[in-house]
Amino acid sequence: MAPTTGVAGGHVERVLERYRGLALGALLDDLPSGGPRYLYDLVAEYPRRWGKGLRAALCLATCRAFGGAEAVGLNAAVTVELFHNAFLIHDDIQDESEQRRGAATLHAEYGVGVALNVGNMTNLLALQRLAANRAALGSGIAWRLFEETELMLRHSLEGQAIEIGWIRDNVSELDADDYYRMCLKKTSWYTCIYPCRAGILVATGRQNAVDVLDRYGWYLGAAFQIQDDALNLVGDYARYGKEIAGDLWEGKRTLILIDFMRRCTADERERTLDFLSRRRGQRTASEVRWLHGRLLAYDCVESARRSARDLAEAARREGQRALGAAADTEDGRFLLDLTDYVVERHR
Amino acid sequence: MAPTTGVAGGHVERVLERYRGLALGALLDDLPSGGPRYLYDLVAEYPRRWGKGLRAALCLATCRAFGGAEAVGLNAAVTVELFHNAFLIHDDIQDESEQRRGAATLHAEYGVGVALNVGNMTNLLALQRLAANRAALGSGIAWRLFEETELMLRHSLEGQAIEIGWIRDNVSELDADDYYRMCLKKTSWYTCIYPCRAGILVATGRQNAVDVLDRYGWYLGAAFQIQDDALNLVGDYARYGKEIAGDLWEGKRTLILIDFMRRCTADERERTLDFLSRRRGQRTASEVRWLHGRLLAYDCVESARRSARDLAEAARREGQRALGAAADTEDGRFLLDLTDYVVERHR
Repeated sequence: MAPTTGVAGGHVERVLERYRGLALGALLDDLPSGGPRYLYDLVAEYPRRWGKGLRAALCLATCRAFGGAEAVGLNAAVTVELFHNAFLIHDDIQDESEQRRGAATLHAEYGVGVALNVGNMTNLLALQRLAANRAALGSGIAWRLFEETELMLRHSLEGQAIEIGWIRDNVSELDADDYYRMCLKKTSWYTCIYPCRAGILVATGRQNAVDVLDRYGWYLGAAFQIQDDALNLVGDYARYGKEIAGDLWEGKRTLILIDFMRRCTADERERTLDFLSRRRGQRTASEVRWLHGRLLAYDCVESARRSARDLAEAARREGQRALGAAADTEDGRFLLDLTDYVVERHR
Repeated sequence: MAPTTGVAGGHVERVLERYRGLALGALLDDLPSGGPRYLYDLVAEYPRRWGKGLRAALCLATCRAFGGAEAVGLNAAVTVELFHNAFLIHDDIQDESEQRRGAATLHAEYGVGVALNVGNMTNLLALQRLAANRAALGSGIAWRLFEETELMLRHSLEGQAIEIGWIRDNVSELDADDYYRMCLKKTSWYTCIYPCRAGILVATGRQNAVDVLDRYGWYLGAAFQIQDDALNLVGDYARYGKEIAGDLWEGKRTLILIDFMRRCTADERERTLDFLSRRRGQRTASEVRWLHGRLLAYDCVESARRSARDLAEAARREGQRALGAAADTEDGRFLLDLTDYVVERHR
């Protein structure tokens, strides 16, 4: 993969870094102190490991591009990051993942009981942020943001149900469209569409024009997820921070696996289906290595990354159209250049 | 235990049955249909198994006792039951419980991934109910109910963290006051205090007088929880619906266990601590039987039930004081007689 050292890449990473610092700083500063053990201290655990801050940055940059001040968008950006961290904690339990951001997942370290509770508390802190908007933005906008949040949560939980259902039912007849529909709900809504809608809403105070970046967010999220699936197979653990090939251990129906299953031989398909029919604990390292090798041999990772680059280009076009004159501002350029970043990133 | 066939018992159960029917009927009628597999259909699973409906009934009876119509309280009652069912689903995962309401727990049947997601969706549906209050009750009351909900969730998650922390750290130096503090947060807030506060709020529309039944709810919840702990040890599975002695398998610090550990011999204490130091999967049936026998031999169950009856009497006194003239209405009598019901119930 090409290193992200170009002018655009450096610019994107500087803005990302600044918005991430702002949002995660505010998030950590405002966490309740005290309370029982294994609660607020552990809410801080994943945020302290520093993610990319992509969601906070999308929210803040959108807010600024639509004429809002940074301070107006900050609360929404923190909210978005809190929901994201809650998803990560619960998602790691659901996938039985072992590593997150370069260290043990919360449930691997503290047990499922503690982790589930910490995820719930992280969600509650996000809800409290929404209530706090009432004083800052007025009751009308605060309710609209609450409704936006409900919509995002509904799509995300439905997307999660689709993905878990595919694994549970050992579904094998999937095509790229199935993947994209799942991805829209599971990833794009909360990673991109919601942060953009929230940013527009708080910036403009207009309750009915929050959807102009929806297509941008939808394509950007899909490109982001495909790159995530690719890094899971060919990434560098030190930078990626999750166990390599974890998606294979978990039986995830990625675009890469779907592509392979449509192109492989009957024997390979049978062997893959047998592998997928078992539970995570009943899969072996040698089987994972075999499947990993097959995905690479069929060039499925590169093929998926080509689709991701097409999506990223589509996101740029949609973003340019929606941003209009704001495309030429610092934040507008950031939003557009982010489309390259999500498919070139190493982490 | 005395059967609940007295006049008060029959009256309480009739009112419970009616309010439960109302609230659970509305809850099930309004669930989204369609959507992906393993989601909305499973949100209906625990509610369809019919619980006691205690929380919905508390909310509706309080609403009526404070001058509100049944229809005004119904949405809050459904909200309360949705949060309750979400807690049950997540709690069963956290405790690794096997049985709930006479059948397999959701995670035992469908896996942790599905169950966690269904619990989250149940919470989301409860939040959507809160937003729906805006049209019915006005923005001010709807926000207050949202704040009440945040407060309840905070106490509940902190209570859960305390209990899980005790098990995780194998804490042995606990006394009755520790138990009561945990119980206030883990049980009383969401089972009794929140339903009462919500009922008063929607009935009166007065935002600052929602706390008059707090003491009633606090004592009632503690009495309820102790009876729950007792039924876990000496209940009849067919009526109780959970695995008998499940709390011992899970290492729960009940008032009964705390009492035993303060009164047993040094040898018994050492043996109990050793038992508690292991994880659920490393405990054996013969150890559970031994501990179960010791708790009965020391009369710890009956001793805890005496405390529960004292708490129930205190709840009745506090309820009478807070209800004033409304104590003589049908709903007032129900709220007061509920104090006997919670310590006499078999399920």
